[in-house]
Amino acid sequence: MTDSTKEQAADWSLSRRSAHAPGSPLVTVIGDGQLARMMHTAGIELGVTIRVLAGTADSSTAQVTPDVVIGDYTQRADVEEVSRDADAVTFDHEHVPNEFLEELIDSGINVQPQPAALIHAQDKLVMRKRLREMGAPVPPFMAIESVEDIRGFFEATSGNVCLKARRGGYDGKGVWFPSTVEHATELVEELLEKGTPLMAEKKVQLVRELSAMVARTPSGEVMAWPVVESVQEDGICFEAVAPAPNTKVELLRQAEQLAKDVATELGVTGALAVELFETTDEAGQPEIIVNELAMRPHNTGHWTQDGCVTSQFEQHLRAVLDRPLGSTAPIAPCTVMANVLGADCDPGTPLHQRMDEVWRRFPEAKIHMYGKGWRPRRKMGHVNMTLKEGQSVEELRTNARLAARYVVTGQWEDQQD
Amino acid sequence: MTDSTKEQAADWSLSRRSAHAPGSPLVTVIGDGQLARMMHTAGIELGVTIRVLAGTADSSTAQVTPDVVIGDYTQRADVEEVSRDADAVTFDHEHVPNEFLEELIDSGINVQPQPAALIHAQDKLVMRKRLREMGAPVPPFMAIESVEDIRGFFEATSGNVCLKARRGGYDGKGVWFPSTVEHATELVEELLEKGTPLMAEKKVQLVRELSAMVARTPSGEVMAWPVVESVQEDGICFEAVAPAPNTKVELLRQAEQLAKDVATELGVTGALAVELFETTDEAGQPEIIVNELAMRPHNTGHWTQDGCVTSQFEQHLRAVLDRPLGSTAPIAPCTVMANVLGADCDPGTPLHQRMDEVWRRFPEAKIHMYGKGWRPRRKMGHVNMTLKEGQSVEELRTNARLAARYVVTGQWEDQQD
Repeated sequence: MTDSTKEQAADWSLSRRSAHAPGSPLVTVIGDGQLARMMHTAGIELGVTIRVLAGTADSSTAQVTPDVVIGDYTQRADVEEVSRDADAVTFDHEHVPNEFLEELIDSGINVQPQPAALIHAQDKLVMRKRLREMGAPVPPFMAIESVEDIRGFFEATSGNVCLKARRGGYDGKGVWFPSTVEHATELVEELLEKGTPLMAEKKVQLVRELSAMVARTPSGEVMAWPVVESVQEDGICFEAVAPAPNTKVELLRQAEQLAKDVATELGVTGALAVELFETTDEAGQPEIIVNELAMRPHNTGHWTQDGCVTSQFEQHLRAVLDRPLGSTAPIAPCTVMANVLGADCDPGTPLHQRMDEVWRRFPEAKIHMYGKGWRPRRKMGHVNMTLKEGQSVEELRTNARLAARYVVTGQWEDQQD
Repeated sequence: MTDSTKEQAADWSLSRRSAHAPGSPLVTVIGDGQLARMMHTAGIELGVTIRVLAGTADSSTAQVTPDVVIGDYTQRADVEEVSRDADAVTFDHEHVPNEFLEELIDSGINVQPQPAALIHAQDKLVMRKRLREMGAPVPPFMAIESVEDIRGFFEATSGNVCLKARRGGYDGKGVWFPSTVEHATELVEELLEKGTPLMAEKKVQLVRELSAMVARTPSGEVMAWPVVESVQEDGICFEAVAPAPNTKVELLRQAEQLAKDVATELGVTGALAVELFETTDEAGQPEIIVNELAMRPHNTGHWTQDGCVTSQFEQHLRAVLDRPLGSTAPIAPCTVMANVLGADCDPGTPLHQRMDEVWRRFPEAKIHMYGKGWRPRRKMGHVNMTLKEGQSVEELRTNARLAARYVVTGQWEDQQD
């Protein structure tokens, strides 16, 4: 536990409650964001108890769960404490040091997914190598350990370089697109000096992004959700459309099979998101390339809460507990998720009034909020909407986007002042 | 607070947590059962904070919510404490003394539904009178204040008597069907002696039971869910089929309109269940008669969690906060809810193993558990299943019933040993 949280935690040890239902399985979730929060929503209905390691008492998950350990996931003792007696230990992010997890496993704790799988969601170079080994489609890449490395790679790719921090990047952070070889070498020099391990890969001629999600149990059962189109802006997902519209069945099948293979080959357990680039091959045909892996519920799977028989949060809990997986059948021909991202400025009206206005216009809008205060571009919630009879997918997408924007801006973007 | 809970509560005042999200509306729920628990599930996703008054620290709701006041709803101070600063105060049962609620209202607290409406869910005689006044279909009834009263009523109805405690009955408790005039007078004598206020009504020639549910806001918006058939055994609901199968559109419309009228006429806010008897009129046509009212989410509305755009738990929260109501459109042509009722004996296998076996056979089964220990016939959970393509409603009903039974017995009732 860090010094700064120690005093608070002293009070909080008193306030931790853990009156579990008789025989209720206990899942420890390391993390306190919206993913852990929504695991708790699913856990309540399943009769699965969630215990979280939260950084602060007012974090997204700690607000809504009784069994909270306040602590720091980079501190061995905190990770140990929250994991004690758990039927499974899982995560809402990939940043827990793997040596802690290895120690937990050695002491008999059931950690899911295991570090041997997790490493592929933590280190992009390890992931790229492993995927290439298994024959999955990846762009040309190399480790960047010197300015000579980047110079060579820049030349080899005719300047189509995507430079990445091997670890820790997300939502567009830790990714750079140097436009000149000078810019590239400067960047690499600076980053290596700071001790940032780097890799580079060939920039993909992107048509769009897809996401293929599956869940897998330790026993090896795998279930896939329909593949979605994921729309990004400045590296942050702001929309997911399920299933991916205007897509050949062949390509959807290929993406789904790829995600299943990755889960099995890497021994992933729980939810796995395989983020994909759709590009065009030499014959002009659509082709997919793996971008990133996430081993947990994922933003591109939020639509499953209102669009599928089994949500990713329920499935993740079932999977890490090695219980049978649920049907992933969609309940509508199309579901759209639009992220509620903090606007550039905080509108004057209260959040609940803005939600009300959205509900007045769209009584079918499912608004999910994370209990987070405003910050520009912060993921504060999401809106799910399913296709109604007579509605087009385009109309549905427009409505979901309008709704999500209104929640943060208090403005209808399709209406002039 | 009762003496017996005082010591426990002394510890628990330390353990109450209330780190609410900035600007999050706070709804106090008086009650700690599965209805309050599932309101919390809905509240998490809406960003609505739930605070409960719970009898015990390990009750169904207290297990899963951080902001819990341990206390007793028959104690004025406990009801006051839990209601402080709430944006709305609501209930998961009808047993809070109305004088406490009146006092809360006088002190400026927003109680929904209000005692003037609640009384019709608390006192069956008051309800019957009011419904008759507004022209709603009710059976012949009268107050029973003496053995003479029951003797007269027994004769007038040719012995078709249903005797009821005016207050406090539920799940078949507080209802008697005396078969002889002697039995009737004995019963009445005994009950009046105990101080039980009584009424009697003419026993209905029951074809089946229906339930019409609506939600209404203080501002007067009303939304109805599809009318369901509710199947009872020994006075306990064990199945709900939505929409009610093999029912004339006319009758469904009439039931829905009746529920809307009752909500508006009585000033109900939040969820309202109008439990109905279907009977046959003199011309042999189906006819409905009001049985009971419940002013809260109701067992016959659990199917909405997995069968409707907006669940009764979400809608109840939105309604008591006077926020716009959500779409009640069904997401499938038919949804069946089967109650998980405690079996006669506790099977040896752990609950989670039994759930797993259900999921293996029915991956589409949505199992909701309440965190309650086993007791014969106790409502421990429910199973929702929606109609799949090519499936008949009968098959769906059979599957849901098999699933719910297996959860408590560990036996498939369609398979011989």
